[in-house]
Amino acid sequence: MAADTPKSAEDRFIEAFFRPLATHPAALNLTDDAAVLAPPAGHDLVMTADAVIAGIHFFPEDAADMVAKKALRVNLSDLAAKGAKPVGFLLTLALPKLLPESWVELFARGLGSDAELYGCPLLGGDSVRTTGPIAISITAVGSVPANTMVRRSGARVGDAVMVTGTIGDAALGLELRDAVTAAKRWKLENKHSYQLMRRYLLPQPRNALAEAVRLNASAAMDVSDGLVGDLGKLCDVSGVSAEIEVARVPLSEAAASVVASEPVAIHKALTGGDDYEIVCTVSPERLDAFRAAADTARVPVTEIGRIVEEKAPPRFLDSDGKPIEFKQTSFSHF
Amino acid sequence: MAADTPKSAEDRFIEAFFRPLATHPAALNLTDDAAVLAPPAGHDLVMTADAVIAGIHFFPEDAADMVAKKALRVNLSDLAAKGAKPVGFLLTLALPKLLPESWVELFARGLGSDAELYGCPLLGGDSVRTTGPIAISITAVGSVPANTMVRRSGARVGDAVMVTGTIGDAALGLELRDAVTAAKRWKLENKHSYQLMRRYLLPQPRNALAEAVRLNASAAMDVSDGLVGDLGKLCDVSGVSAEIEVARVPLSEAAASVVASEPVAIHKALTGGDDYEIVCTVSPERLDAFRAAADTARVPVTEIGRIVEEKAPPRFLDSDGKPIEFKQTSFSHF
Repeated sequence: MAADTPKSAEDRFIEAFFRPLATHPAALNLTDDAAVLAPPAGHDLVMTADAVIAGIHFFPEDAADMVAKKALRVNLSDLAAKGAKPVGFLLTLALPKLLPESWVELFARGLGSDAELYGCPLLGGDSVRTTGPIAISITAVGSVPANTMVRRSGARVGDAVMVTGTIGDAALGLELRDAVTAAKRWKLENKHSYQLMRRYLLPQPRNALAEAVRLNASAAMDVSDGLVGDLGKLCDVSGVSAEIEVARVPLSEAAASVVASEPVAIHKALTGGDDYEIVCTVSPERLDAFRAAADTARVPVTEIGRIVEEKAPPRFLDSDGKPIEFKQTSFSHF
Repeated sequence: MAADTPKSAEDRFIEAFFRPLATHPAALNLTDDAAVLAPPAGHDLVMTADAVIAGIHFFPEDAADMVAKKALRVNLSDLAAKGAKPVGFLLTLALPKLLPESWVELFARGLGSDAELYGCPLLGGDSVRTTGPIAISITAVGSVPANTMVRRSGARVGDAVMVTGTIGDAALGLELRDAVTAAKRWKLENKHSYQLMRRYLLPQPRNALAEAVRLNASAAMDVSDGLVGDLGKLCDVSGVSAEIEVARVPLSEAAASVVASEPVAIHKALTGGDDYEIVCTVSPERLDAFRAAADTARVPVTEIGRIVEEKAPPRFLDSDGKPIEFKQTSFSHF
């Protein structure tokens, strides 16, 4: 009988580690089969799902709390780019049998810390065994006032192309982790190596900018697979092209130092992915308002070019005004 | 430049195989970062997430269309038990590099067929590489009129305990697949072996009964980890116990034949899991209405016992009225 049966490991760690994260009434304290959510009146729900896998999206030796944060943040980044406010998330977690419980505990702690930081509590989910690597899938739910989700498809000729933060850090950071010689080749200061690797380890999604994007951008998406390919997707569904001046693409001091040592590294910076910045288009009339709102949100934004008439991939122009040719425009695991 | 770059395999198979499944306007034709859903007015959204992993929840050699259906149906079963109508689902799919594209094509075909059958279109998702087994995570979204989701916590003393369909088939079917000698030991007809294995391969979620459950049940959940343990969870959050007459638990002809050969197999039937039936509690006043609605929905329902006063695990009584002791009340991969 159940009274005499010890609780399964799954039940125990859900109670101990995950129930404290389920602070939203919709989660029913994780005691039911499903979450039930009364959507905010007059709002649409925005839903996005992304998975991260050990050995593919993070290093198996990465700290469990960082892994949890990355898994949540790649989804939060999508919500931010759509102008949505986080509501909560569902999690499925596939764990190898030999993983120590301390890993799960630290994972839950990292997840809980970000759930609080971003106002995005756990709503429900599932944990299962796998014979393979750790696999984490998250569905994040956000909300926007009805009919205001910012799409990829709204870019218009003459709009400014804006990006947040700096581009390329995470891709260069990944190279530093993959190839131990890269730091030497790039003559990087330790501080800069650390900063780039840190950007790969832990994305900084731009949720602080979500409202500014929603009120001012004509189109937006998050930069997760490389600026060149991602802007290409935005232009494609908008039926336009863009002219980008590569010299205006914001680089961190660390990334600029890499590109100074090895100019071709700019290709990796622009196509490597894992930026989790926002690229958006803003009409000339909304540009001042957007900049002011970004200032208030303390998110740096930079104009890197313009939307132009033509149904074609964006052109990234070098300092001579010549389009750069990229071998690969997006990072792809496939 | 993107124009000259062949599309990634991911982009190609999303376009070819998955876009046709994204029939809901919320999916934006899978051309955006997120789905955007205007929730039905006056309704709550019900959300559930379940993952299935090759080698754990299905056999790696199972046909891809069956795998897809199982992954969706285990989630649909949760919606059914909550009284919810399917709205759509998000999918994350982790695939090994060497998987042939034909697998993905057949997977998408199976998924599309069930999406149509159950009125549950694809809303969005993500596909990633894995170095491990195929891993499929689905978040299903449903809706119920506001405040009518059926919870686990509403069972009251005197309510009838009802189950749909038959119990134990899938668990016995799994044993047949795991242990080639089982069919011989159980002196099973081929027809019966096939029926049991089929129940494991392809759940038959009870979405046809969702409305009847919503209108009549005081508490409900789907039976996925074994009737004994699952009813135990329902009783626990309801603060009650139950008395179940094992002789009344509905068995298929095939399962009855197994139990006739090997009486102890009833333990596996009651605790083995993968039933994807509904167990619910119905007050005596609602019982006739519930039975009539189930009849109309053509879903067999059986009364197996009563909710009794006591905060304790349910008692499963043998034909002498003696409680059966189970070594393990639920199936657990942990």
